[in-house]
Amino acid sequence: MEAKTLLKEHIAKTVSLTEEEFDYFFSHFKSLSFKKGQTIISAGDKVDCEYFVISGCLKAFYINDEIKMYILQFAMPTWWTSDYNALYNQTPAAINVDCITDAEVLCLSNSDREKLCAEFHQVEHFFRWRTNKGYIASQKRLLSFMNNNVKIRYEELLALYPQLYNLVPKHLIAAYLGVSRETLSRLYNS
Amino acid sequence: MEAKTLLKEHIAKTVSLTEEEFDYFFSHFKSLSFKKGQTIISAGDKVDCEYFVISGCLKAFYINDEIKMYILQFAMPTWWTSDYNALYNQTPAAINVDCITDAEVLCLSNSDREKLCAEFHQVEHFFRWRTNKGYIASQKRLLSFMNNNVKIRYEELLALYPQLYNLVPKHLIAAYLGVSRETLSRLYNS
Repeated sequence: MEAKTLLKEHIAKTVSLTEEEFDYFFSHFKSLSFKKGQTIISAGDKVDCEYFVISGCLKAFYINDEIKMYILQFAMPTWWTSDYNALYNQTPAAINVDCITDAEVLCLSNSDREKLCAEFHQVEHFFRWRTNKGYIASQKRLLSFMNNNVKIRYEELLALYPQLYNLVPKHLIAAYLGVSRETLSRLYNS
Repeated sequence: MEAKTLLKEHIAKTVSLTEEEFDYFFSHFKSLSFKKGQTIISAGDKVDCEYFVISGCLKAFYINDEIKMYILQFAMPTWWTSDYNALYNQTPAAINVDCITDAEVLCLSNSDREKLCAEFHQVEHFFRWRTNKGYIASQKRLLSFMNNNVKIRYEELLALYPQLYNLVPKHLIAAYLGVSRETLSRLYNS
């Protein structure tokens, strides 16, 4: 689907903007294309934008002192991603975002988001709702980490991202669950 | 500090409301007092409110299948807490909130928050900003969980809550860090 239509339908689920208002809103987004494997944010970077996924699949991940990779989020079409701490507080990125597949995204800068929120109550409402969803997803991710039951966590993951099983290499699903590939194989063969 | 003054100063850091607007805003909050050890939210409950802490200290925690307790958040004066997934999506609470000390809180219902956000752009802005802060704190908590270095996580915790060391029993600090009391003793004696 065309980027503008996808964003429009996404916004319209929460708020009503006129054609003119939406055109103005959309004019602040920049369209970017990435190849499979390309990096969008590297730990240590300055972060100026958040990203709305049009096509493809991104992953947001963290690498700890023991070089173990943890996946915080898979971002598919209509998902938003960034390092929000780095974005809002102007600190260096703590996480990385790269492309699992070729991907198209729309990019919105921090200052343009704040400007649009100040100009339109409806846009402010949309972003409050969007951040609520992100906050809730993040809380669920945290609870999933605290839950010792890998089978339940695996089922939660597939409920959250039904397309994931065919789209994403199994070692990345294991990195999301924080288990070895062998443990994961036992789960999806059972 | 009086509840109304504390909330007013907290709001004024982000948005400007007139005296009249703030009085109207404040009229939607209900003041509640709890004793040390009292439960505010139990896993399984219906959740209708979020809580702004006036005095004392609450903890939001999760108990997994192995009856291991994980602390998601300590909530001190001017912090907000609830089970936001349960609150927004009207699902049963997955977490518990109780009082580490005697506590006074202000309680705001889901429907009143939404009404106030629709009535005042400034209030919507405040709650977007508040949720951003919560989202960022939740992301940091998740990264702290993925970081294998307990010493760094302990230092991050004390930076986030400087008063915690004297206020909260050590076994609760250990439950936040996901380590044994013995490991924690080695850290704060080093």
